Amino acid sequence: MASVTNHKNVPDIVVGRLPLYLRALGAMQAAGKQVTSSQELADWLGISSAQIRKDLSHFGEFGKQGTGYSVVMLQERLRHILHLNREWPVIVVGAGNIGSAIARYSGFERRGFRVLGVFDNDPGKIGAQAGPFVVQDAARMIEFIRERDIRHAMLAVPAEHAQSVTDTLVEAGIIAILNYAPINLIVPPHVHVESIDPVVHLQKMTFYIV
Amino acid sequence: MASVTNHKNVPDIVVGRLPLYLRALGAMQAAGKQVTSSQELADWLGISSAQIRKDLSHFGEFGKQGTGYSVVMLQERLRHILHLNREWPVIVVGAGNIGSAIARYSGFERRGFRVLGVFDNDPGKIGAQAGPFVVQDAARMIEFIRERDIRHAMLAVPAEHAQSVTDTLVEAGIIAILNYAPINLIVPPHVHVESIDPVVHLQKMTFYIV
Repeated sequence: MASVTNHKNVPDIVVGRLPLYLRALGAMQAAGKQVTSSQELADWLGISSAQIRKDLSHFGEFGKQGTGYSVVMLQERLRHILHLNREWPVIVVGAGNIGSAIARYSGFERRGFRVLGVFDNDPGKIGAQAGPFVVQDAARMIEFIRERDIRHAMLAVPAEHAQSVTDTLVEAGIIAILNYAPINLIVPPHVHVESIDPVVHLQKMTFYIV
Repeated sequence: MASVTNHKNVPDIVVGRLPLYLRALGAMQAAGKQVTSSQELADWLGISSAQIRKDLSHFGEFGKQGTGYSVVMLQERLRHILHLNREWPVIVVGAGNIGSAIARYSGFERRGFRVLGVFDNDPGKIGAQAGPFVVQDAARMIEFIRERDIRHAMLAVPAEHAQSVTDTLVEAGIIAILNYAPINLIVPPHVHVESIDPVVHLQKMTFYIV
């Protein structure tokens, strides 16, 4: 592989677009497309082709000038950059509406992740089914995470418990948390948090309405 | 109200942070806090106080130098800026795992939105219960949207149907779509789309792992 710039210096907003490029390329491949261009990707994603070329330039050379990108090769490179050239185990914490919906979602595995377990501390939920999983007692979570060297967790507990559960996850070794609770989590610098809050997105769009 | 800059020139990334400020202020208020500072908000949100002051400066003066912000007043101003000084009706399209979980979520109303209906085109789902809603036939969706002048939709249909359903929503008058399908939607310029894809977030965080 060609030498690349130091990935640690890549702006976070650029990193955030790479999964979107990967997703679009996957859709192109599914549609039978073998070669694409920054312009075609741009049209597909609603951003400028200059932005795409600039984003990719952080990671070295992609394809030859004028011949476009190989859809398969560009995906491979992006997966390599994102450390997705392996499967990552992930747990779901919270077996309520959202946690159960996540546990049933079948879209993780072909994109690099495999849900290994679902946890809750509610005796009424422990032992129940959440999609293909039997909900486990949250008291066993730390051991489960450590034994399997799990780094990723999806957190779907009520807001009032989200911080204390986060502290437990971090203690167990989790370093990437996808947070569905509508609060801002406090974590040490080595832990990454991404948050999903539908109301935040609805509110943002409402700014542009009227 | 003091004169403010033209809101249309505010960078999209700034607009995207306003709901986070609003959410943090709501939590502060719930915790009994009456006054806050850009530094406290910054600590709460994990961003810099300079960023917060710069973001807010797009919208005029907030509070007096050195006395901090009134938690109640700043929320009021942010709600005004985001057009949340009224309640917005919203529909859920797709009554699968995610759509049903959204329909059951009780966190919309106190933050400016009210779900009015849930739609699906699957005869096996129409008439079934999704939280407090009876799933309605998607064939009646356009009429429902027009009669109630609804602008917001949450889209939780399978990826392969998301674009065609989007076209229908836009035809009916929807201009803000929260998209849970893992594809990029093509919409006219007057329509806003925000997308929620857990895998995109997991993949982004995985860049930083190892």
